[in-house]
Amino acid sequence: MSNRNNPSVADLGEWGLIAALTQRMPPGSGVSVGIGDDAAVLAVPGGQVVAAVDMLLEGRHFVREWSSARDVGVKAAARSLADIAAMGAEPSALLVGLAAPGSLPAEWALGLADGLADEAKRAGASVVGGDTASADSVMISVTALGTLAQNAVTRAGARPGDKVAVAGHLGWSAAGYEILAAKAQGFEELRTAHLRPSPPYDAGPEAARLGATAMIDISDGLLADLGHIADASAVAIEVRSSALDVGDPLATAASDPLACVLTGGEDHALVAAFPSRTELPDRWRVIGTVHAGRPEVLVDGALYPGTPGWQHFR
Amino acid sequence: MSNRNNPSVADLGEWGLIAALTQRMPPGSGVSVGIGDDAAVLAVPGGQVVAAVDMLLEGRHFVREWSSARDVGVKAAARSLADIAAMGAEPSALLVGLAAPGSLPAEWALGLADGLADEAKRAGASVVGGDTASADSVMISVTALGTLAQNAVTRAGARPGDKVAVAGHLGWSAAGYEILAAKAQGFEELRTAHLRPSPPYDAGPEAARLGATAMIDISDGLLADLGHIADASAVAIEVRSSALDVGDPLATAASDPLACVLTGGEDHALVAAFPSRTELPDRWRVIGTVHAGRPEVLVDGALYPGTPGWQHFR
Repeated sequence: MSNRNNPSVADLGEWGLIAALTQRMPPGSGVSVGIGDDAAVLAVPGGQVVAAVDMLLEGRHFVREWSSARDVGVKAAARSLADIAAMGAEPSALLVGLAAPGSLPAEWALGLADGLADEAKRAGASVVGGDTASADSVMISVTALGTLAQNAVTRAGARPGDKVAVAGHLGWSAAGYEILAAKAQGFEELRTAHLRPSPPYDAGPEAARLGATAMIDISDGLLADLGHIADASAVAIEVRSSALDVGDPLATAASDPLACVLTGGEDHALVAAFPSRTELPDRWRVIGTVHAGRPEVLVDGALYPGTPGWQHFR
Repeated sequence: MSNRNNPSVADLGEWGLIAALTQRMPPGSGVSVGIGDDAAVLAVPGGQVVAAVDMLLEGRHFVREWSSARDVGVKAAARSLADIAAMGAEPSALLVGLAAPGSLPAEWALGLADGLADEAKRAGASVVGGDTASADSVMISVTALGTLAQNAVTRAGARPGDKVAVAGHLGWSAAGYEILAAKAQGFEELRTAHLRPSPPYDAGPEAARLGATAMIDISDGLLADLGHIADASAVAIEVRSSALDVGDPLATAASDPLACVLTGGEDHALVAAFPSRTELPDRWRVIGTVHAGRPEVLVDGALYPGTPGWQHFR
């Protein structure tokens, strides 16, 4: 159903599309070669580059009925950029693979580019390269790159006695999903949290500077992702439910606010372990402690029922 | 149709699959954090990283009837790695997004990993990260990273008087496609060239050291890709057909050997412009010259009929 007023991706052609997308995604600082050559070239001042790739598939990770193109761009960028921040690195660049049907409105592709560019900019990065292909549904692959001012913070360094703290919202995306699925009104901030996650990118390098011993971004849920730290660090982690923020808007909106906070994914908050005496800025909420013991995550002293996912690595 | 002897990707589960894939893709040198954390961390000695992404989609870029899983892995890796070499950079790492149906045989995914790992190794790189998702058909996104020992060689530096030279085969992939499509016998080397391209990666940094002024890898065809250099450098490029290698096996196998050489893509040979007095090693075959003039590519003084693609940028 394309026409001159509402052209499709096929109407623009691959290179017309690329040219239009490129205009929406200006290069940031440190980019010596951006979109349009064989590869991008970026400065890496610290001599170490951090890199992660994530895929976002229509029907699986988003539906066009719920998400605007810009929402999808923000979400696709945030997923990968949060991985960079979770290493204690500063995000610097995105490379985007876009497979889409030829019938996709060009306006949708441009909205996607706007979302990618906006979220990249919020993280201090820019889109530096990409590839396009035709496919039956929309598939987006986003590679994020970043730079390190110090050693990377992996999942493997948590030590008994460390405290565990979170920066960013927990459970908001899951509660927003509930509201969207129920076609309920209100709770705009929760719906927005699901459609356009807003990871606290700068908290990642901040944690690294503060001496974080392990860190991860919460994509699968707090308990699942703490499980990855427990496994990689060979420690037990105890979470105190009284320390978690289950107040409004979650308390009013969610059917089970604590479950949202403990098991809801896709907020891309950062959770990190710090030496116990570390003085943490306000945005880091201490929620638990690291113990010696077999790798597991306990809530108020007990395994939380129904936390799939992270045990798969055992 | 999976069973214990022939499990599917769904039988392994996402993390079982990732664990199995990871075993097939050992980290190379310079990788301080590989697969399994939020992001990979790599050394970038020169302080500049080179990055490119390419997608390979089932039905569009390959069919499982023709290509083994290992073939697809090699091809997916080669496409991105050649982009790195074409900047004059040394490939260092791959990040791989794999979307596939749950019914895909696990053996196929492992063969893919073998192909990716083998080709990465041939280029001096390794697979350092990835993501998996389920989809109706196989889609692979490969991001390649590399490092520079000198300034990048872009498409934009060719100057009037430069000579133009090629390293690697031209037209072999296109001829191999013809043979596969005709279900003809023989010409194993051409069929292999189509299924598993073999870019001369080290010719990229070599060209940079020799002072190449512009370079590109031939993915769309010699004339189309020279067109990109002509456009970016604002020069005319003259190709002499008598200088091209249209001998065997092309001469015997292809219906139009010269057309294969001039317009066949996917060999990922490297074509570069060099100052005229540059002494080139044997593997660089001089095929033409750069002239002042409006951006166009001429063959023996005339526009070659039917060379779509690069004009789209006009």
